[in-house]
Amino acid sequence: MAVAEGYACHCLSIDYGQRHRAELQAAADLARALGACEHRVLRLTLNDFGGSALTDASIDVPVDGCQPGIPLTYVPARNTVLLSVALAWAEVLASRDIFIGVNAVDYSGYPDCRPEYIVAFEKMANLATRAAVEGATLRLHAPLIDLSKAQIITRGCELCVDFRLTVSCYQADEQGAACGVCDACRLRRAGFLAAGIADPTRYVVGRAVGDSAGAVSC
Amino acid sequence: MAVAEGYACHCLSIDYGQRHRAELQAAADLARALGACEHRVLRLTLNDFGGSALTDASIDVPVDGCQPGIPLTYVPARNTVLLSVALAWAEVLASRDIFIGVNAVDYSGYPDCRPEYIVAFEKMANLATRAAVEGATLRLHAPLIDLSKAQIITRGCELCVDFRLTVSCYQADEQGAACGVCDACRLRRAGFLAAGIADPTRYVVGRAVGDSAGAVSC
Repeated sequence: MAVAEGYACHCLSIDYGQRHRAELQAAADLARALGACEHRVLRLTLNDFGGSALTDASIDVPVDGCQPGIPLTYVPARNTVLLSVALAWAEVLASRDIFIGVNAVDYSGYPDCRPEYIVAFEKMANLATRAAVEGATLRLHAPLIDLSKAQIITRGCELCVDFRLTVSCYQADEQGAACGVCDACRLRRAGFLAAGIADPTRYVVGRAVGDSAGAVSC
Repeated sequence: MAVAEGYACHCLSIDYGQRHRAELQAAADLARALGACEHRVLRLTLNDFGGSALTDASIDVPVDGCQPGIPLTYVPARNTVLLSVALAWAEVLASRDIFIGVNAVDYSGYPDCRPEYIVAFEKMANLATRAAVEGATLRLHAPLIDLSKAQIITRGCELCVDFRLTVSCYQADEQGAACGVCDACRLRRAGFLAAGIADPTRYVVGRAVGDSAGAVSC
């Protein structure tokens, strides 16, 4: 969406010890496919802290369906850390716009996906930097925040996103194949179904839930 | 100061590729000397971004005296990154208090040392975490923020801080010896002079500026 709006995109991933590190290669592939200026991966050893099924190998990723409340896959302060590192890079690049893909389906469960959090981070960021002191205004964009998963997929298809390249699964294997049963897989698959678009996700054989009968290709 | 107030202290340093990495060992030594529960060092490759004399070897640390404005040693969004990682660890520890040593002398030059920045970060943090959603309030303490360097040194002496263990220098050598001429050294040395306390800093031979004649020992 940022590319479509004409932004020159510098893409950032953080290797924070996540279980689904397949997303790092997927991000690199997507950045290239979408014509981004560059894609960087910074290393931060957040897994030293643990506290999440995504950063602590001793906590299993839940696979029994989405439950109310904040899930075990919540990584403490993750979006704050991601946005802070993005803010540092934005300042070096003299960029005034940061995009993050938080969205509405998640924000009932993840505190740092809520609109009021995004507003508070933007306000803090506009006090934090040299650019802010010098009068520049930084904008924090969350273009997916009010969209359902189905709407995100539909919009992605309109923009010719190749969803075979994307990884949502919390425990994707090294080749990026999805488990089909974690919350992220279930929400993604339900999104394709609701959008009426065939799900091109590569699943680990025999693990996928539901089906996409009657769907059209993206 | 946090130890004196009765807090069980979990100390955090970030190895972000800083030129003065001697401060990491100094922090470990100080944490031990002050009776902290633990000290951790997380690695974050902020130096990949550059943009500061402290993270880019091609930008020299200024040594000609403090100048008005934001100095070359400003690291883009550093305190935001440090506090974000601290917030992540605090949540894992179920801690509701984060301390940071930003102070008044610096905040004319560093945007992320200003009181309004600290207030904005605290507000954002109280929307960012599971603990916040569950009703806990996180407090961000900056007990040095209104103190001069001389007042900080005097307070440290009252609390029996061994200032021989501390490193302020932006280009300290591997053993922690200070250059004596960078802004951090000048401000520190002036602080000891103003406090009337003998400066125990180990300087690289022949580089220190000023003197501490007439000062008393801490």
